[in-house]
Amino acid sequence: MRLDVVTIFPEYLEPLNVSLVGKARARGQLDVHVHDLRQWTHDRHNTVDDTPYGGGPGMVMKTGPWGEALDQTLADGYDAGAHGPVLVVPTPSGRPFTQELAVELSERPWLIFTPARYEGIDRRVMDEYATRMPVYEVSIGDYVLAGGEAAVLVITEAVARLLPGVLGNAESHRDDSFAPGAMANLLEGPVYTKPPEWRGHAIPDVLVSGHHGKIARWRRDEAFRRTAAHRPDLIERCDPAAFDKKDRETLSILGWAPEPGGRFWRRVEGVEE
Amino acid sequence: MRLDVVTIFPEYLEPLNVSLVGKARARGQLDVHVHDLRQWTHDRHNTVDDTPYGGGPGMVMKTGPWGEALDQTLADGYDAGAHGPVLVVPTPSGRPFTQELAVELSERPWLIFTPARYEGIDRRVMDEYATRMPVYEVSIGDYVLAGGEAAVLVITEAVARLLPGVLGNAESHRDDSFAPGAMANLLEGPVYTKPPEWRGHAIPDVLVSGHHGKIARWRRDEAFRRTAAHRPDLIERCDPAAFDKKDRETLSILGWAPEPGGRFWRRVEGVEE
Repeated sequence: MRLDVVTIFPEYLEPLNVSLVGKARARGQLDVHVHDLRQWTHDRHNTVDDTPYGGGPGMVMKTGPWGEALDQTLADGYDAGAHGPVLVVPTPSGRPFTQELAVELSERPWLIFTPARYEGIDRRVMDEYATRMPVYEVSIGDYVLAGGEAAVLVITEAVARLLPGVLGNAESHRDDSFAPGAMANLLEGPVYTKPPEWRGHAIPDVLVSGHHGKIARWRRDEAFRRTAAHRPDLIERCDPAAFDKKDRETLSILGWAPEPGGRFWRRVEGVEE
Repeated sequence: MRLDVVTIFPEYLEPLNVSLVGKARARGQLDVHVHDLRQWTHDRHNTVDDTPYGGGPGMVMKTGPWGEALDQTLADGYDAGAHGPVLVVPTPSGRPFTQELAVELSERPWLIFTPARYEGIDRRVMDEYATRMPVYEVSIGDYVLAGGEAAVLVITEAVARLLPGVLGNAESHRDDSFAPGAMANLLEGPVYTKPPEWRGHAIPDVLVSGHHGKIARWRRDEAFRRTAAHRPDLIERCDPAAFDKKDRETLSILGWAPEPGGRFWRRVEGVEE
């Protein structure tokens, strides 16, 4: 997979040399190019922004440097195959970046990121390149950053770990929060390792019972407990057809009840947090 | 504000020297300490992880090094005043990190971050320190990262830009997506700057009309349009009491209708995306 990032803070992208993404680059699984947007400016102040039309606070990033940067990046002649490149624009006004979208992007051969600063990029840049390639305007969450660079690190890492051969043995997809399968829509519960007692805190007995069925059941109950406490919205999104009898009991103890249609809703506030 | 980060990848935190956070450090507004967790290991392999109790894939981060790291960080004797330190643990099974939570954290004098790798940190670490300080287990979004370091960069940046005196003139809170006020729950619409025409794309006429009322109305309509397209969940969360007559007209054109209780719901799919 090829990644291009155009930014006014190339040094912010240093973590792309570290850990999982750094190793994937070293192995040749990722081909990363970080470009300084200011190389496509032509005044002696290397200006990339100007005041917004219509007034108001803040500055807007100008079309010119972005247009030249993207034209030259695209002209680089990388053969992205049948699919071609996609443009990824991190912005708080984008659609949510989710694990599903990470999977979608991990199947594309070439991602071009345009992290913005200030009030964002002149709209016409996205309008222009949307005529040439898919443009994903994405938001990594409901908060405001100083710029899109941190979002590029997040998206890159979420995507890179899904590429074949990138995740080592120490890591695993299977029980991930948000992974498809039995744990879809459930958060992972607590994890423990040696020693069995630490500062007066013992591990739950069931984990050393050797009884695989009981351990699986305990983990699933803990996942329900945690999800109910931190993310009731996820329980509401669960397909009740995926719940067994014990799941329903656990949810009932946690204060949830089935609707006539089958979905679960929170009946009692503040139970068993 | 003081920030401590304990991690096995200190070099991932290099962006804390760059841009807004880097400048806030240079000005003395932020006092940042990045620690290598492995300095608190005592075997020659500097082991920080072990296999999970109960079996399963992946590794769990051990209590010992985290306990020593946190004890020594706390013993450093920083006077955090009446409020004391808080522990921020990035994890996909945490509660959502939102702009509201960024504001809450920005009012604390001392944040200690424990970004994990692998399957996460032994639960007993959070249980132990929760007896001594508030512990925030937070998720920056519904996707899985290789580790918590990227989340620390995100949280730090979202928090730091809210500290008094950190944001420069080129930036502004007022019209932020997710900012409180008239634009609460609405995403920002498009922005434009000079030149008025670029590659055949003209700016909207209204922005050079000089008519402040019309410009404000256009911006609000565009915010509704974008929010309806990318984040229908936010429209559903809006308080209809904050809508004026024109807002209701715009929502109606976009395919939304008021419920008997007053909230708006999406009546028509796929209109005016």
